[in-house]
Amino acid sequence: MPQAQHQSHRFADTLKRLLRRNAGPNIRKILERTHPVDLAGVLGQFIPDDQLRLLSLAGGNTMQAEVVSALSMRMATDLVEQMPLDRAVAIVREMSGDDSADLLGELEETLSAKIIEAMPVEESEEVTELLRYGEATAGGIMSPDVLAIPQDMSASEAILTVQESPDVEMAFYLYVVNDHDSLVGVLSLRQLVTCRPESIIKDIMNPQVVSVKTEEDQEEVARIVSRYDFLAVPVVDDTNRLVGMVTVDDVIDVIREEATEDILKMAGAGDNYDERRSPLRSIWLRAPWLSAALVGGIVASFVITGFEETLARYLPLAAFIPVIIGMAGNVGTQTLAIVVRGLATRKIDVKKFWRVVGSEILVGSVLGILFGVALGAMGFFRFRGDSVADPFLLAVAVGSASAVAMVLAATVAAAIPMLFARLHIDPAVATGPFVTTAVDIIGVIVYFNIVTAIV
Amino acid sequence: MPQAQHQSHRFADTLKRLLRRNAGPNIRKILERTHPVDLAGVLGQFIPDDQLRLLSLAGGNTMQAEVVSALSMRMATDLVEQMPLDRAVAIVREMSGDDSADLLGELEETLSAKIIEAMPVEESEEVTELLRYGEATAGGIMSPDVLAIPQDMSASEAILTVQESPDVEMAFYLYVVNDHDSLVGVLSLRQLVTCRPESIIKDIMNPQVVSVKTEEDQEEVARIVSRYDFLAVPVVDDTNRLVGMVTVDDVIDVIREEATEDILKMAGAGDNYDERRSPLRSIWLRAPWLSAALVGGIVASFVITGFEETLARYLPLAAFIPVIIGMAGNVGTQTLAIVVRGLATRKIDVKKFWRVVGSEILVGSVLGILFGVALGAMGFFRFRGDSVADPFLLAVAVGSASAVAMVLAATVAAAIPMLFARLHIDPAVATGPFVTTAVDIIGVIVYFNIVTAIV
Repeated sequence: MPQAQHQSHRFADTLKRLLRRNAGPNIRKILERTHPVDLAGVLGQFIPDDQLRLLSLAGGNTMQAEVVSALSMRMATDLVEQMPLDRAVAIVREMSGDDSADLLGELEETLSAKIIEAMPVEESEEVTELLRYGEATAGGIMSPDVLAIPQDMSASEAILTVQESPDVEMAFYLYVVNDHDSLVGVLSLRQLVTCRPESIIKDIMNPQVVSVKTEEDQEEVARIVSRYDFLAVPVVDDTNRLVGMVTVDDVIDVIREEATEDILKMAGAGDNYDERRSPLRSIWLRAPWLSAALVGGIVASFVITGFEETLARYLPLAAFIPVIIGMAGNVGTQTLAIVVRGLATRKIDVKKFWRVVGSEILVGSVLGILFGVALGAMGFFRFRGDSVADPFLLAVAVGSASAVAMVLAATVAAAIPMLFARLHIDPAVATGPFVTTAVDIIGVIVYFNIVTAIV
Repeated sequence: MPQAQHQSHRFADTLKRLLRRNAGPNIRKILERTHPVDLAGVLGQFIPDDQLRLLSLAGGNTMQAEVVSALSMRMATDLVEQMPLDRAVAIVREMSGDDSADLLGELEETLSAKIIEAMPVEESEEVTELLRYGEATAGGIMSPDVLAIPQDMSASEAILTVQESPDVEMAFYLYVVNDHDSLVGVLSLRQLVTCRPESIIKDIMNPQVVSVKTEEDQEEVARIVSRYDFLAVPVVDDTNRLVGMVTVDDVIDVIREEATEDILKMAGAGDNYDERRSPLRSIWLRAPWLSAALVGGIVASFVITGFEETLARYLPLAAFIPVIIGMAGNVGTQTLAIVVRGLATRKIDVKKFWRVVGSEILVGSVLGILFGVALGAMGFFRFRGDSVADPFLLAVAVGSASAVAMVLAATVAAAIPMLFARLHIDPAVATGPFVTTAVDIIGVIVYFNIVTAIV
């Protein structure tokens, strides 16, 4: 049964109590009825020694391997690094091909080499093969345990083959290959069950099979799977030889990860989320974007210094600096979120530069005029008491500066990610360094130039 | 074959050329080999009349229904509203239960009522039943076409049942029910094929079946499916009666949507992405957050006015306003992104308030001190020429103001979403109005108070 968060707290408390009492058999009984994912979900609340004890009470190597697969990568590596070597080998061998390769790729190198050495040749070859692919490619996320059916088999023989291959991941599609192991078709398990037993696979398969190459970007793989509502997509090498499959559960992970990456990158806070990220690492990831912002802020301060004379004459102008920059910044952030997310979900076509930027300029202009007028009106009441200058002129200056800054902010915030996408640079990165800083500087320049020109 | 973006442009151009030439048979031939999703992907590039023509050339009603299902909701409703009623009815009837209910729920009400009236009673009852569920619930996204197998059937009978129900969506799991239609177990199609034909379903099924209630939030459904790597989850009513299933492809849509919502909400730019959103609607969605920012900016301007005396004496201080606010704002945005995303993906536990906020305060403090010192050093060189005050004191004031503002920004940006999550308010909404504005005001207050106190 799935567990809500409050249930998992209670579950962990029960386990802790039983561990204190050394009640191994009781724990074993509870864990027998527990889904490996649920045990993995609470394991982080225990000290390393207890984590190892709980894992060994969870069942056989297969069950333990499922628990380790469900852990976050950081926890899994920590745990495996504390095990005796033979236990680590036994667990890694029971993990599915893609999960074991991911884990071995992240483990400390000498340990990883020792585990691979201790594996039977066939398995270690498979794993080293997988380790060669880039982490964020189809090869890197695929499972090599794919069921390939020869095209001239009969349906009844194929059913037998399915029955005899318990290790294969989610065999809901059967991929059909020719004599050279080349992918030539696809057949759903459903179709196989529904057709007459003597039918030849070649005649009932769908030859229009969609596949991806091993080096295909994982985001593109996710897009194909979700666009066509596939449960899995076969992976082929350069010679169209079937080498694995990416299943929809891995695609879900990719989609989640990419969304998290986009959000964190846009905020200049690194590119992945790790609940156990050390403060030092967090600082290291965040400092570069803050440095960029600092440089931008210092440029802005030089701009203001250049207009010190204007400022000295009309001191109340200083009070409007934050609101002018703030409004421009907010419009910029809105535009950026819309454009970056639209590009990521392919709702925005990279080629329609002017259509996208034009529409954002239009929206920015209306918002700019609206809020510029509001701010100008506020300014008028603010300046009315002062005698140094015409309050109406000052109000016009503040209002129009705000409007212009907002329009420019919207333009920059739409244009930069569109340009980045065209140059095949991730548009989500565009925010941190470029847009936020650019908008601050633009705001100050526009404000003081307009004010100086008008009054 | 899946199409990359450049291919889809070429595809649309070909169709346009053939339409101009009135080459119906040629179009029909091309569309026969086209995946409905791919036709749906380019349909937006045609005028309404041509959209209808292309749709009718796409094949039978089933094929046309698949194309309509793959369109964005806006395009689908526009298209159906232009069809003759009988054609609309024919297409809606061929759509899968969940898709037709979604469409009917969005269509203009009188048209929707007419279509439902024209459907056979059984189908119209199913659809009206579905329309009763909330849009963002399990009931709202489930498909009612689920295969229920009585528990005392034999495996061979069950296989026959599968073979005779072609309409059922993705039958990879078979859900087992008792005499009262209550869900009692689950069986994969694979298990069914692998067991002996005379086995009784009750004996081979897994009785630990995970299900969700019709009113369960769609985000929770997505979480369960992705947590346990399910391909589908059965939906039951209050009496545990099996009423439908949510498949993994719908879950992917939910995950995508929710991520988009989070990003747009955090930027104060509405909550959904629609490529055909009118500028007016965009302005309407964005204006409230900008109004909140305007109010915040005006409060900040009042704060600065309160310190006009200090400012008049040390005019260069004005130049540092943007950088102080900017640095605080950037740290706040980083913290916010980390906390909001961590909460959304359940990597952050709502209950660990102090652990999360404490860690963000720690990181904020280190970053604050680091960049405060840097800014102070810059300030020292800036102030050195002026004779009005001790440049060292001014530098200390600017640096420490920046550090304090950054720490407070990190604190607020971590605490507000954590509090919102506890109160069951969507933490992503917290950014727009609360945090950005709060941080601006905090920055100004801290800056001028510290400066006045020190110099």
